[in-house]
Amino acid sequence: MTEDAFTICIAGLGLMGGSLALALRADPTPAVWRAARIVGVSRSATTLDAARAAGAIDRGTTDLAQGVAEADLVVLATPVRTILRLLPEVGRHARPGTLVMDLGSSKGQICAAMADLPAGLQPVGAHPMCGKETAGFAAADALLYRQRPFVLCPLPRTTAEALATAHDLATAVGGRPLVVDPLAHDRAVAAISHLPYVVAAAVVAAVDGAGDGLAWTLAASGFRDTTRVAASDVDMMLDILLTNREALLDWMDAFADQFAELRRNLAAGDETGLRACLATAQARRAGMRF
Amino acid sequence: MTEDAFTICIAGLGLMGGSLALALRADPTPAVWRAARIVGVSRSATTLDAARAAGAIDRGTTDLAQGVAEADLVVLATPVRTILRLLPEVGRHARPGTLVMDLGSSKGQICAAMADLPAGLQPVGAHPMCGKETAGFAAADALLYRQRPFVLCPLPRTTAEALATAHDLATAVGGRPLVVDPLAHDRAVAAISHLPYVVAAAVVAAVDGAGDGLAWTLAASGFRDTTRVAASDVDMMLDILLTNREALLDWMDAFADQFAELRRNLAAGDETGLRACLATAQARRAGMRF
Repeated sequence: MTEDAFTICIAGLGLMGGSLALALRADPTPAVWRAARIVGVSRSATTLDAARAAGAIDRGTTDLAQGVAEADLVVLATPVRTILRLLPEVGRHARPGTLVMDLGSSKGQICAAMADLPAGLQPVGAHPMCGKETAGFAAADALLYRQRPFVLCPLPRTTAEALATAHDLATAVGGRPLVVDPLAHDRAVAAISHLPYVVAAAVVAAVDGAGDGLAWTLAASGFRDTTRVAASDVDMMLDILLTNREALLDWMDAFADQFAELRRNLAAGDETGLRACLATAQARRAGMRF
Repeated sequence: MTEDAFTICIAGLGLMGGSLALALRADPTPAVWRAARIVGVSRSATTLDAARAAGAIDRGTTDLAQGVAEADLVVLATPVRTILRLLPEVGRHARPGTLVMDLGSSKGQICAAMADLPAGLQPVGAHPMCGKETAGFAAADALLYRQRPFVLCPLPRTTAEALATAHDLATAVGGRPLVVDPLAHDRAVAAISHLPYVVAAAVVAAVDGAGDGLAWTLAASGFRDTTRVAASDVDMMLDILLTNREALLDWMDAFADQFAELRRNLAAGDETGLRACLATAQARRAGMRF
């Protein structure tokens, strides 16, 4: 591997960034991507050591400017508000023509910030639809992106060639690239990811608040699964919620309306009304394939 | 196997009853239970055929009175309101000394109805804390009860010997017997099972109602898990919700308070308040072991 190899700088080597690096090194990644040089950027020397030891990165640095300066492709894989903070620094240090991507879970504010990057850079917002409630490089997994939608949000100024490279990257790690408008993305993920998260957190908080020890003893697979995402990293989730506030508030209100209707029907013992609500949800959910 | 063998009549051969029968036939069930004769009762001849073919039952009948009349132990494994309807019939046909159990998910109304059984019968309400969102004998699984709490609710009149037999049965199928007061049980399962169910149904209904096709395309593991129970059998769930209404309404209100606080903090952009809510739930949920 020489300094002339296509160089990818991945800033943030947690679940998303670490998995991206591992996936680029794993079979059956196309040879052209496997040959890329990967520079990892992290605040943590321990994380850099772990990523090097796992063969995920060729070189590690705690200096974002240095990592960015030698890259053909920069991928920001940190929490959303850190991405927003790092973008101007990427703009100052990236070479002309560099493709600048991110893996943040909300896209509106990030794509708006990408529009302020110097004209020579090629921005593409991205959001792979996968995750775990565990964080950090230790949770990274070369198969994380496999078969999952990999959302791409090019800017109006992004060239077709740059978008094609982003598309190739998504495919190389096993994902299914899907070009989506940033605000349509934000509205959709508020529904299927951010709403379920706040709902799960409220369920856990409600049960926790009552101090019913028997409840915890009896908790079974239903509780385990419905509340799993409540264990997600709070810093990461705060960034997501606060940068996708309007869309999430709309969905929270739509949810609250449905919940209130269920409560009304239950309180009134209105079996017909209750059945109608539950049967619609049952048919919809039973028909979903993952 | 002779007619003198200990005879168990299982009424309802769906997920719970079918799994109970299979578990009693599987290794490493104690020999004394494996030797029991199992009579299955179902409205469906097809189900009886399937259960016989799987070796789950020795004999099948569509006639509850007949099945009950020859049993030493009757287990009602139907939806809750069917259990309530069948109990008087069991009372009319069971031989003196018969142990009468059920596997229903709410216990208050069932245990109250069991108190009206003839004096010679030995009632023990039961609720194994396991389940799936799939129903029917096809979903039955000999390992369903393994390592799961198996709640037992004896009545004041239940003899120690009858409770010991129920305890043995729970252990024989791999469960962990736990004697609990019916109303304490109902309050606890309203929190960890019935609340998550209505919440999941409301999430699916809210997203479905908005007709956002992209949302369904992007739905990932978080949505899959948080909404899984919304696919549960509606008839079964209606019975549970309507027979555990007061406890569930209380938890729905506690949940709504937490949800409203999250919404207020989000709408106000109050990061400190939002973090406090989410961090408490995160710590609680991350500390749970299943």
